[in-house]
Amino acid sequence: MAPETRVRRIALVQLQMDEEPKLNVERAESAIRDAAQRGAEIVCLPELFRTRYFPQEERADRFDLAEPIPGPTTERLSKLSSSLGLVLVAPIFERRGAGVYHNSAVVLDADGSIAGLYRKMHIPDDPLFSEKFYFAPGDLGFRSFDTRAGRVGLLICWDQWFPEAARLVALDGAEVLFFPTAIGWVPDEGNEERAAGRDSWITIQRAHAIANGVFVAAVNRVGREQNLEFYGSSFVADPQGRILEEAPPDREAVLIVDCPLSRIEEQRRSWPFLRDRRVDAYGDLLVRYRR
Amino acid sequence: MAPETRVRRIALVQLQMDEEPKLNVERAESAIRDAAQRGAEIVCLPELFRTRYFPQEERADRFDLAEPIPGPTTERLSKLSSSLGLVLVAPIFERRGAGVYHNSAVVLDADGSIAGLYRKMHIPDDPLFSEKFYFAPGDLGFRSFDTRAGRVGLLICWDQWFPEAARLVALDGAEVLFFPTAIGWVPDEGNEERAAGRDSWITIQRAHAIANGVFVAAVNRVGREQNLEFYGSSFVADPQGRILEEAPPDREAVLIVDCPLSRIEEQRRSWPFLRDRRVDAYGDLLVRYRR
Repeated sequence: MAPETRVRRIALVQLQMDEEPKLNVERAESAIRDAAQRGAEIVCLPELFRTRYFPQEERADRFDLAEPIPGPTTERLSKLSSSLGLVLVAPIFERRGAGVYHNSAVVLDADGSIAGLYRKMHIPDDPLFSEKFYFAPGDLGFRSFDTRAGRVGLLICWDQWFPEAARLVALDGAEVLFFPTAIGWVPDEGNEERAAGRDSWITIQRAHAIANGVFVAAVNRVGREQNLEFYGSSFVADPQGRILEEAPPDREAVLIVDCPLSRIEEQRRSWPFLRDRRVDAYGDLLVRYRR
Repeated sequence: MAPETRVRRIALVQLQMDEEPKLNVERAESAIRDAAQRGAEIVCLPELFRTRYFPQEERADRFDLAEPIPGPTTERLSKLSSSLGLVLVAPIFERRGAGVYHNSAVVLDADGSIAGLYRKMHIPDDPLFSEKFYFAPGDLGFRSFDTRAGRVGLLICWDQWFPEAARLVALDGAEVLFFPTAIGWVPDEGNEERAAGRDSWITIQRAHAIANGVFVAAVNRVGREQNLEFYGSSFVADPQGRILEEAPPDREAVLIVDCPLSRIEEQRRSWPFLRDRRVDAYGDLLVRYRR
């Protein structure tokens, strides 16, 4: 069988978030319409795009920001998806039940239906990133989802530091692996540290593209919120890890990127890593530490 | 417990190989002596350093180049190790038995004893890299080894494209993860492809350093042999993936690099990935593909 010849046009919406959720949803919708006009088939929003990055503090009243899935935001966006005929990756602060919250994202298909739900599996807890307070770890595993615009892989932010996550989503058939993200610089980081941190963030995701022969799309927010300075730099890497496009670190952007799907099989034919994985010898990946 | 404060000085020996094995061993020994004089505690040689990269062709007479372990080369190098009091990572084309050959490496401790044996687990087979003809896949798993110069992680060349391998060796306690390598450009690659290929090779190994919070040392050969142009560029990355030193692409070098071991725990405290791995949800890493 000859490789896929289609080119998939995707859009990365890099936004600065307002204190008011209603405004963020409206501005996301406006960016999605812009992306649609420019021919995007899949549009991805940043992590928790409806709100400021509230996990900087542990405040029980912030749980009021959560919504069910389906719920007001997914319903509103699913109407937009179907009217524009595009696939949408929409992060949601999910209220699953009383006291059960997740850092989630839905894949809305081009007909407005929910093609997939992902609940963030790796939950950070660092100063200014108190996510373990808010979010129960995901229990839906690492998956890709069929849509009218191909098979969409989906992980969220902290997941991007775990090669296991990218591998599992790629093994599930992803063509493009999306990472809605909220990453920024913390106070007192010098310029060298800032540059190194951002570079590590880009490097490890480019490596996921290389190791798995998939496109990787990282979608970050931008701007200062309290103590964090989100550094944008949303980008797409091709299946050899080459950066196709990159957004600025300090302002909003709708990045439109063409992904020639033939590059996936072409890359995997010349660097056939999936052929050579030693699945017989990886058992200890299922333990915490080997000492 | 306070983090380790020692600084580990390592040496990467980037060599051009001669047709004559005896000469290669002599030149390796000379480079090891040079490294010892400059204070190196661990010295790593390139993959299959005793010979030209014979897997460019499939020739049964090439098996004559293999040696047992222990054997002439390990015995000779172990004398050197003990006389200089340093740890040596020495790749060997291993004859394990009649018709059973491996692409191996030994870790020789500072007293000359064999501290560890690794047999390459991922075996490539691409045009000009016909390793599946020569080498049975390793059956000793992914390990680190205790030495007088700390715990040494060891993988070989093609392994470097597999995040699973780096993870398993890091989980086994490696401080520095060594990758003896023989990678080069093939004919008809343009300048852009050459640069991209080399960059992918560096990027994925920097990502292993980042994902695992370990030092990574890649040790390549250099120079043209038949159809391959080995591109050197041996380097060390710190536990955040920052390149500490890099050798040139086109000539021999003995790279001496200081690795402050405190960086390992410091990095893992600020980016605690090992804490958050979802070992309950990685089961499908043990399958070939999920579709």
